[in-house]
Amino acid sequence: MSSLPTGPGPTTPPPALPEGALRVVALGGIGEVGRNMTVFEFDGRLLIVDCGVLFPEDDQPGVDLILPDFRAIEDRLEDIDGLVLTHGHEDHIGAVPFLLRLVPDLKIYGSRFTNALLAAKAKEHRQRPNLIEVREGERRKVGRFDLEFFAVNHSIPDALAVAIRTPAGVVLHTGDIKLDQLPLDGRLTDLAGFSRLGDEGVDLFCVDSTNAEVPGFVMPERDIGPVLDDVVRKVGQRVIVACFASHVHRVQQVLDAAVRHGRRVAFVGRSMVRNMGIAADLGLLNVPDGLLVNLDQASDLPEGKVLFVSTGSQGEPLSALSRMARGEHRQISIRAGDTVVLASSMIPGNETAVFGVVNGLTRLGANVVHQGNAKVHVSGHASAGELLYLYNAVRPSNVMPVHGEWKHLRANGELAVRTGVAPENVVIAEDGVVVDLVDGKATRTGRVEVGHVYVDGLSVGDVGESTLSDRLVLGEGGFIAITVAVDTSTGRAVTRPTVSGRGFSDDPKALDAVVPMVEMELARTEAEGITDTHRIAQAVRRVVGRWVADTYRRRPMIVPTVIPV
Amino acid sequence: MSSLPTGPGPTTPPPALPEGALRVVALGGIGEVGRNMTVFEFDGRLLIVDCGVLFPEDDQPGVDLILPDFRAIEDRLEDIDGLVLTHGHEDHIGAVPFLLRLVPDLKIYGSRFTNALLAAKAKEHRQRPNLIEVREGERRKVGRFDLEFFAVNHSIPDALAVAIRTPAGVVLHTGDIKLDQLPLDGRLTDLAGFSRLGDEGVDLFCVDSTNAEVPGFVMPERDIGPVLDDVVRKVGQRVIVACFASHVHRVQQVLDAAVRHGRRVAFVGRSMVRNMGIAADLGLLNVPDGLLVNLDQASDLPEGKVLFVSTGSQGEPLSALSRMARGEHRQISIRAGDTVVLASSMIPGNETAVFGVVNGLTRLGANVVHQGNAKVHVSGHASAGELLYLYNAVRPSNVMPVHGEWKHLRANGELAVRTGVAPENVVIAEDGVVVDLVDGKATRTGRVEVGHVYVDGLSVGDVGESTLSDRLVLGEGGFIAITVAVDTSTGRAVTRPTVSGRGFSDDPKALDAVVPMVEMELARTEAEGITDTHRIAQAVRRVVGRWVADTYRRRPMIVPTVIPV
Repeated sequence: MSSLPTGPGPTTPPPALPEGALRVVALGGIGEVGRNMTVFEFDGRLLIVDCGVLFPEDDQPGVDLILPDFRAIEDRLEDIDGLVLTHGHEDHIGAVPFLLRLVPDLKIYGSRFTNALLAAKAKEHRQRPNLIEVREGERRKVGRFDLEFFAVNHSIPDALAVAIRTPAGVVLHTGDIKLDQLPLDGRLTDLAGFSRLGDEGVDLFCVDSTNAEVPGFVMPERDIGPVLDDVVRKVGQRVIVACFASHVHRVQQVLDAAVRHGRRVAFVGRSMVRNMGIAADLGLLNVPDGLLVNLDQASDLPEGKVLFVSTGSQGEPLSALSRMARGEHRQISIRAGDTVVLASSMIPGNETAVFGVVNGLTRLGANVVHQGNAKVHVSGHASAGELLYLYNAVRPSNVMPVHGEWKHLRANGELAVRTGVAPENVVIAEDGVVVDLVDGKATRTGRVEVGHVYVDGLSVGDVGESTLSDRLVLGEGGFIAITVAVDTSTGRAVTRPTVSGRGFSDDPKALDAVVPMVEMELARTEAEGITDTHRIAQAVRRVVGRWVADTYRRRPMIVPTVIPV
Repeated sequence: MSSLPTGPGPTTPPPALPEGALRVVALGGIGEVGRNMTVFEFDGRLLIVDCGVLFPEDDQPGVDLILPDFRAIEDRLEDIDGLVLTHGHEDHIGAVPFLLRLVPDLKIYGSRFTNALLAAKAKEHRQRPNLIEVREGERRKVGRFDLEFFAVNHSIPDALAVAIRTPAGVVLHTGDIKLDQLPLDGRLTDLAGFSRLGDEGVDLFCVDSTNAEVPGFVMPERDIGPVLDDVVRKVGQRVIVACFASHVHRVQQVLDAAVRHGRRVAFVGRSMVRNMGIAADLGLLNVPDGLLVNLDQASDLPEGKVLFVSTGSQGEPLSALSRMARGEHRQISIRAGDTVVLASSMIPGNETAVFGVVNGLTRLGANVVHQGNAKVHVSGHASAGELLYLYNAVRPSNVMPVHGEWKHLRANGELAVRTGVAPENVVIAEDGVVVDLVDGKATRTGRVEVGHVYVDGLSVGDVGESTLSDRLVLGEGGFIAITVAVDTSTGRAVTRPTVSGRGFSDDPKALDAVVPMVEMELARTEAEGITDTHRIAQAVRRVVGRWVADTYRRRPMIVPTVIPV
């Protein structure tokens, strides 16, 4: 394994791009899972592939979304020829509204379903993006770039891979991909097309790394159908199936089972209702007339005649399923004998939340069927066995693993090497690392700065590392605030100090010692002739901080305010 | 599955315990994973089995440990005949020092290794507990209770199960258990003893539920040896193995591999050094002379001649391994070609932290071997197949699953039913639910209050739900503090308002609008003749809160302080 180039790569800015060369920079999505965005540059023009969001971790409290860092292209917005969207998942389209704030007339190329999902999202942002529909098999010039689109199989319909031809060479970007050989909609990943492109010669192959560590092959989506059918058939009471709100084929299989066993279906959760409406409108989801009911109608039906398809499979605390698990859902009370199916994976980081939901549902008497005890989920990303097929079809000169953390990228690179790619032609480049394709050889040549851009409520970017670090301190230990008014001519306190603590202790007497302590300190600063409010505040912070550390071994934020009068 | 009694059980206090009956209450450990503590009562006397801690979740920020709730026994401390410890893991012994504060002379019964680990822990608390050594095969009266101890195999040496005989019937409590048929130390779980007890008749069987959902059998610990050996043999550079600091047999296999391949070993991490010292002293760990080196000596050795055994397998941010992954460890810098083995499971909730460590190590060029890509871990808890052996050996009249969340308890109960236990004799009882064994039948008869008792720094119990909920608000959104001095005779502000925000925004101008807004509000309250500082503060909170919600769609804590002058 040591044959691959290792380490995080260059730290200095890249050199000027040589004439006739192609540059690739990920502004998100490499070295992490989410906010995918890759920028291609040729002859002074830019093409962007995907523009998604990343969901925050525990050490990013209060953050709603994390965006790719647009700084590297901020001064070059007029150089952008277009944005290609490979598919409609949030981690590929979620940041588009924020890019549109900078480039309202951006040309956006996506498949029918992808564009429909983006249009619905843009509407919530009161935007009307310039959407151009493309489809598999199509070849189209976008500015300086000659694009070709390929059908790709994933956990959402209508996904595409894109080939980018420039005089510098041919790039193939898979987007998110797997190779289900029996897809529900019959739309195979176009391995034949990839092979043809391979015959032509692929200079740089950007490949989905998500499951590169997983040996073997992903089971066909189709094989889940009988398992779901079996559950629905056996259960006499209510069935609630939770899955991703964009997984049209999973939902289709649930609907089919409902139809077969005489159950009506209610969709639960805003995004589920919206997305399945779009899918049905576009003919991607087959919903027999009269199958759907609303929640009120559903509660009038006998228990054995109804099935709910719900969001909340990741344990999101505000989702319908979480509320059911806590016994707080207005319309659906879980009863002994109900069956809940989690037809989904757990996104890393959501384990505790999901287990909490399972625990709550079980406590109320529901039987919970999940990936751990039944085959009710398959991944949307190619495992190692499938990736080998891709490498052997494409036979690329250079490989750049994308979509994944370092361990995924490394594992994917190793697979490329095993199919015959020279180790020195495998480029592992995290966000911001600049990769130049010069004379058919891809090399890491420099780095542009890529940070986390946080969305919190309505504003973007004003919550940064300093605010987050304050939140972490406050969240761990709360604060103790001490306020006093001081006569700045004498340095004498003109009020008694006011002390309040929040998030520190439930004990109302916990801070009783603080006022006398601060008064003593203020007497000292006054005696020393200190009249500067900042110095007085510092003295107060020091004495209270030391006391709380000694007495409680805790580290709340100490917030002294000295008001000059 | 619906045959089992479901739902959380009774909510009212239990009736008086009938004469000749046995009562069982868990004050921790059922309906959750951790802080195991079960109280048995007969004829007015109490016997406690285990007294462990639970580690906090994300929604319990700043908390160090969670203790069992002692309230139910607080008034009955003099009725306690003794505390039995089944083994030395933190979730079984960690809360003993806190119980000792209430009952310093408590008689504590444990095996040699368990007592040694507890003694080391108690020493840190400056306590010298009254430890009584017991061993498998031993039978001993403890007050009103007649105890018998059985050897049990688990992921720590010297674990015990305990049978409790009273005139009300025979209870068998497994502690944590598995049935490795080829244990490294030859010490089998005493299934023969359990069978003999089963012949005698077991009225209530308390059974470890942790892996009840996992089908089949746990692979022998011994089978990990060759995998570890293979890694150590093949690697030319440094090897770092991280595992639980109490897993003596796992460490033994690592040491054996090091010896075979000519590597010296350094222990890294305080608890690893301490526990392996104890294990070696007691003859449970075989350390050849000259094998161990300290960290300084280790760094002088050639890369292929050294192996580190480290803590940090759960991604603990301050552990040695996490510091290595961030490139911050003083003595060990990860280099390309180093191999790190995570010979451990991931405790649910730690996934993100562990993946972060793996990602960091990989980014620095290390090869990371873990449960996901090599067989370097087996569980310490019996899978479903083993649990069936237990039920068939013991043939209990009543079953009470312990150690686990609801889903584990339910799954374990189902296994009991499949071996012939009547569903109505399976008692699923979460923390606080009172189970009475009367005339050979176990029933849930009531509930005592069991809450979370938080340890934060030096104090116990003063951090409660109100403090935690403040911390969650502060951690999500920070605070905005507004301070003003007001003349309480007129209601007029005598200073300009002081505004400061922490954890709210990095933008220094973010709160510029607040001072004029508060001044306008103060003018209004003054004009209305409001002089009460609380009412003025409320008015300020309302106006600032509304402004921040409208402008930012955020919910920081608003902290107004009105100082009367």
